[in-house]
Amino acid sequence: MATPTAPPTPTPLSLAELHDSLGDPVLDAMNFLNEVVARFPDALSFAPGRPAEGTFEPEDLARHLRSYTAYLEQELGWSRDQVRTQLFQYGRTNGIIHELIARTVANDEGIEVPPEAVVVTTGCQEAMLLTLRALFARPEDTLLVSSPCYVGITGVARLLGIQVRPVPEGPDGPDPLAVRAAVRAAKRAGQRPRAFYVVPDFANPSGASMSRAARELLLAVAEEEELLVLEDDPYGFFVRTGEARPTLKALDRGRRVVHLGSFAKTALPGARVGYVLADQEVVGPGGGRTLLADELSKIKSMTTVNTSAVSQAVIGGLLVESGCRLREANSAAVAHYRTTMDTLLDALERHFPAERRAELGVSWNRPDGGFFLVVDVPFTADHKALELSARAFGVLWTPMCDFHLDGGGTRQLRLSCSSQSPEAITEGIARLAAFITAQITGTAA
Amino acid sequence: MATPTAPPTPTPLSLAELHDSLGDPVLDAMNFLNEVVARFPDALSFAPGRPAEGTFEPEDLARHLRSYTAYLEQELGWSRDQVRTQLFQYGRTNGIIHELIARTVANDEGIEVPPEAVVVTTGCQEAMLLTLRALFARPEDTLLVSSPCYVGITGVARLLGIQVRPVPEGPDGPDPLAVRAAVRAAKRAGQRPRAFYVVPDFANPSGASMSRAARELLLAVAEEEELLVLEDDPYGFFVRTGEARPTLKALDRGRRVVHLGSFAKTALPGARVGYVLADQEVVGPGGGRTLLADELSKIKSMTTVNTSAVSQAVIGGLLVESGCRLREANSAAVAHYRTTMDTLLDALERHFPAERRAELGVSWNRPDGGFFLVVDVPFTADHKALELSARAFGVLWTPMCDFHLDGGGTRQLRLSCSSQSPEAITEGIARLAAFITAQITGTAA
Repeated sequence: MATPTAPPTPTPLSLAELHDSLGDPVLDAMNFLNEVVARFPDALSFAPGRPAEGTFEPEDLARHLRSYTAYLEQELGWSRDQVRTQLFQYGRTNGIIHELIARTVANDEGIEVPPEAVVVTTGCQEAMLLTLRALFARPEDTLLVSSPCYVGITGVARLLGIQVRPVPEGPDGPDPLAVRAAVRAAKRAGQRPRAFYVVPDFANPSGASMSRAARELLLAVAEEEELLVLEDDPYGFFVRTGEARPTLKALDRGRRVVHLGSFAKTALPGARVGYVLADQEVVGPGGGRTLLADELSKIKSMTTVNTSAVSQAVIGGLLVESGCRLREANSAAVAHYRTTMDTLLDALERHFPAERRAELGVSWNRPDGGFFLVVDVPFTADHKALELSARAFGVLWTPMCDFHLDGGGTRQLRLSCSSQSPEAITEGIARLAAFITAQITGTAA
Repeated sequence: MATPTAPPTPTPLSLAELHDSLGDPVLDAMNFLNEVVARFPDALSFAPGRPAEGTFEPEDLARHLRSYTAYLEQELGWSRDQVRTQLFQYGRTNGIIHELIARTVANDEGIEVPPEAVVVTTGCQEAMLLTLRALFARPEDTLLVSSPCYVGITGVARLLGIQVRPVPEGPDGPDPLAVRAAVRAAKRAGQRPRAFYVVPDFANPSGASMSRAARELLLAVAEEEELLVLEDDPYGFFVRTGEARPTLKALDRGRRVVHLGSFAKTALPGARVGYVLADQEVVGPGGGRTLLADELSKIKSMTTVNTSAVSQAVIGGLLVESGCRLREANSAAVAHYRTTMDTLLDALERHFPAERRAELGVSWNRPDGGFFLVVDVPFTADHKALELSARAFGVLWTPMCDFHLDGGGTRQLRLSCSSQSPEAITEGIARLAAFITAQITGTAA
């Protein structure tokens, strides 16, 4: 074989030869949304579910780091060398702030798990990746998801080639009886339902929440059908009206719930720190017992080795500063999100009073909290409509069809008000009302 | 259905029902090693490939963060609000320090890629995960690996169910002609060889390196056989004797090389920041062109969303402080690793002079650099032997059989001297010599 003398002409790769998740409509939809947002930087945006930046300043990072090292030295009695190694080196696969997290979820949620059941992850997204990889082994293993559904979970399932079966939300949100029916239908179809993914509080995208009774019933269904529940609860603190409800994990006496946690909304998205609470026992072939968290650790060693010690130290310091009571530390954020959602609802009401909206065929839900609500419209609210809305009306939102696996949501749009000022929300809803009205009445922009 | 009145007894999960990667010998081997290290904390350890901590102090993190924000404000002219958002929020999927990385690899390695071809990852491990997921689509798609092989790549392949074919290293390290033969054998067996994974400099675990001629030949083979090369080069800076050799990516004129990068050894393992250089073009079904980096971004949005902005800012600051010349910034580290490897080789020579080692049947290689060397012994150097070595002789090492997919390396042990002081190396080799001699001559400890 001769070494070539002229530089070879690079041959492009063919997308058709790459993994088929890359052609998935979900991933394409996300790309389209990002691209529209980038193309219309001056549009007012109700599209992304970004948290508000509050009083954050870059200098806070150094303070959080100091709080964490002071905790190690003063509370735990570590030497300077131990602290240096903790921040510098590769560390424990399942994380270094697992004890602080266990203390925080006990204080905030009444969840009692041993620190060894906590896996600290690179954001909640890695928590989903590890959990699905561990639990789904055979081609017939099936994930049930409450639908409409957050694309992060269906995207991971796609990467790993895991079958997904949507369970339609009821009028009161995720529906335990529909879950039971779906489990049974899946079994009849030769599938093995392994777990049900649900956001019980202020779901993304629908804004719906489960009642306390529905939570108890879901756990009973899980017990009866030998199903695990993957609980994702990033918005639970952000109550607008009424009382906070207990998480599924706080109610879980049969160890049926794997709790997927995030600090992105309650602390700092830029740190990319999340966690899994996985206190389920696993029995090996020789009878040896581990926790599911130990098994997730084996997988994590092959995805990210461990979560950034620097990021964990920042979040750890923030937890120490809060006395491991993050709910209290979020009281200003809770008030902010209450105001933004109230402002959004008021503005919708002003532009579409009862009579007018009945006439136009427009309606929306009134979530008890969280970042999102859904508007029903009598026209197709797809990517084309979004592009028109951005270009001609200067307002962005998210088509609900992107969150459906089974073709629903074509006449719905999701609004997020999490990171906007009240003034921007008021102006944005004025623009949205103009867009919606024009679509229905044929009025030109 | 009645809600249960007594708490259900938690039913344990069965390991046999979880994903089969969890029973993989590679993952079990890693667990065993970690467990032995933990059980014998006083043993001198040549086991882990941890980088030296040098002059690192926890306060350096705050300085790196300030260097990064100063770069944004002063060099790029960003406003305070933009800087705040950059550190606080969810960010660009492919990272925020891609331009600094592109500048650094140009300065340090002569690699010229556009910043858009850089994907910033949560350590090099995520770089492997994204790259394998994108490139491997069908059951017949096969990954070739130079063997003995780093377990991180074979572990990811196991998670994703990707077939792996080992290509034995030759006496001069990874062998292009063996790669060509393996590609052809794979094709004859109905497999589709997609890529070859190799560590060209001071490989983990063997310590072997490819000559410049072998690098050129490997690229020619890749061109001829339409194979991609996954180059992993964490140790390339750490030259002990002779000159640094060009990376495969620096020699790559046919865009055959996907370069997997790490800052764990050259900057800070605790930040968990790595990268992929993926400048290959990808053609879509409609003829649209993207870079492979853009496709990796779609997958990354489903594994970790983005790499911690805090971690990227720390590494970004460190790059800014070095003038994007990390090789020069590593001159003290290069000298350290040269000294530790020299000390290790001298100590082996002292305990096993030429005549003695011929008599005992002991030998070792003399790597030109890096962290690792391999000792050949005339007895089985397995997990049982390691346990004896730790308990009775107070010294740890890594069995080479853990790095072989095909049953080799049973009479070899890997020594890493990267994070030990010269005194510890001298004492550790005295203990290792006692262990080896006792194994061969039957002398009691």
